[in-house]
Amino acid sequence: MANQKKTRNQNISKIRKLRKEEVSVDSLIEGIRQSDKASLARAITLVESSNPEHLEQAEQLIVKSLALNSNSIRIGITGVPGVGKSSFIEVFGKTLTLSGKKVAVLAVDPTSALSKGSILGDKTRMEELSKDPLAFIRPSPSGESLGGVARKTRESIILCEAAGYDVILVETVGVGQSEIAVHSMVDFFLLLKLSGAGDELQGIKRGIMEMADGIAINKADGNNVERAKLAQAEFARALHLYPPKENGWVPKVFCCSAVENTGINTLWELIQDFTKTMKTNGHFERNRKLQNKNWFLQTVDEQIKVYFHSKKSFVEAQEEMLKAIEENKISPYHAARKLLDGLKEQLK
Amino acid sequence: MANQKKTRNQNISKIRKLRKEEVSVDSLIEGIRQSDKASLARAITLVESSNPEHLEQAEQLIVKSLALNSNSIRIGITGVPGVGKSSFIEVFGKTLTLSGKKVAVLAVDPTSALSKGSILGDKTRMEELSKDPLAFIRPSPSGESLGGVARKTRESIILCEAAGYDVILVETVGVGQSEIAVHSMVDFFLLLKLSGAGDELQGIKRGIMEMADGIAINKADGNNVERAKLAQAEFARALHLYPPKENGWVPKVFCCSAVENTGINTLWELIQDFTKTMKTNGHFERNRKLQNKNWFLQTVDEQIKVYFHSKKSFVEAQEEMLKAIEENKISPYHAARKLLDGLKEQLK
Repeated sequence: MANQKKTRNQNISKIRKLRKEEVSVDSLIEGIRQSDKASLARAITLVESSNPEHLEQAEQLIVKSLALNSNSIRIGITGVPGVGKSSFIEVFGKTLTLSGKKVAVLAVDPTSALSKGSILGDKTRMEELSKDPLAFIRPSPSGESLGGVARKTRESIILCEAAGYDVILVETVGVGQSEIAVHSMVDFFLLLKLSGAGDELQGIKRGIMEMADGIAINKADGNNVERAKLAQAEFARALHLYPPKENGWVPKVFCCSAVENTGINTLWELIQDFTKTMKTNGHFERNRKLQNKNWFLQTVDEQIKVYFHSKKSFVEAQEEMLKAIEENKISPYHAARKLLDGLKEQLK
Repeated sequence: MANQKKTRNQNISKIRKLRKEEVSVDSLIEGIRQSDKASLARAITLVESSNPEHLEQAEQLIVKSLALNSNSIRIGITGVPGVGKSSFIEVFGKTLTLSGKKVAVLAVDPTSALSKGSILGDKTRMEELSKDPLAFIRPSPSGESLGGVARKTRESIILCEAAGYDVILVETVGVGQSEIAVHSMVDFFLLLKLSGAGDELQGIKRGIMEMADGIAINKADGNNVERAKLAQAEFARALHLYPPKENGWVPKVFCCSAVENTGINTLWELIQDFTKTMKTNGHFERNRKLQNKNWFLQTVDEQIKVYFHSKKSFVEAQEEMLKAIEENKISPYHAARKLLDGLKEQLK
């Protein structure tokens, strides 16, 4: 029995070794080029990994993926929980795949850091789309910081584009920070709203409205149609009060229903109109360049952090300060100052 | 005329100079010790400043404030827009000042980065409290990053405590990240809810419930009392499904009304019970130490960033990369890598 177990363990370790060997950057990139979903999923996992050993591979993956040209459109979709984002994405995604588009769905979830939940965690919510060979759905659990989430979602977008996905949908939920992060990485930003519920209760603050390129009044079906039309008129009026956008785009409001599949084509026409207009007036590329610069700046800040935390002397000095704080020997602010002073001395 | 203008300008610059001289760290600390609200407000502005020249003064202010002992209780209050946070804080604050407590109100607003709005921006919403000599209300506009907000709010707490405030109320709004930030700097975390509106629509996800030490069903007045009681029972049941907290505390649910001033005393008794229990079982101090360690770690990361961005060679190299990205000569990810490689070479 003991021997059998030993042999079994040896086999497992052999398989593990094989698996490890399989995940070479080149084979992953090859898989991505062939639009193999398993390779794409694996590449995203690698990029999301906080294991320092994966960093080098992740960087190579991104650099190589960036070299593969893409002509994608990146669409951010936001709205409070309950507004029907998943059903909406399911129907919108199916419409796109039926017309031959390849659709990737990613998520930025500001709450999962604590609850370990994820907006796209429940795949059954997009049952049809998840079975569609032209669709790729990826729940993207957030990292420790929001910056972390943002960084990884950007990388995931690049990987999906390298795999030939034409439309990248980035779903988010929440008020504020996560929308700002998603807005900074998409071309078109869609806000889903409900009629009926007061604006305040929907948790949408002025800032989110300002970011929207389109507003969809969702669940405009059955008894709700009249109310939805009223809400549409109200939002259209509200939008007129905002100063015009720099890119000249006037955000549009429309009604839609995921259940009755109405308004979905309106959205796709709107997005195509938006893309065409922005590409003509140069704002499409200008916006992507601006986003690239921000991506660069964020990556630099994050990598500096990663670098120091990989230095033994730094980690040791930090541990010492943590111990002193635990023993009430130093205030946290003073400890930070001392650590930094030591660092600056070293860097002189 | 030209001469008059010149004289006037000279006078203004004299006044500005005088003003500048006034803001010495020692005079500010002296003002804070005497609980002078103008000095406290000025100190917070200094700490919130992103001007590098203010950094040294800000650090001194914090270190000196930390040396002044405090016996405060820090209370976080969250809930979606429309739940009635401001009226609640107004009534709760007044109850405390009437019993002789000094109350400070701070805010963490995740949406103001874009909208330039602020949850406490509209001071008239707490008209009574803002006129109360025992109360200090400070809108705290968020910085560029959520980390930035968190850091400054912590510092503002310390300054308020140095000024002798007994109860620090930290208000926040939103789903996720901002609550996590506030939860990491308070002793007691209160979640305000409404009866009637579905849980989903209120945008409260599981993670937020888990953080709460108390849940108040607000607006439990008039026709709403029955529904509020039902909601109370429901939440109490829901809370039972969560695993017990490490500190042994079982979160309480209660009804309250800012309009009819009911349930406010219940809350204060609950917080006193909580504080007593936690101080007895050692979790009060343990929690504060843990928070101090996190504060230290966040400050270190932030200061490293600030340090590099103050270095001319670093800023120049970064500018060069930004130019290359603008000219499509390099991908943002590659640019970050190149900049970091240069940095590491220098640091060897």
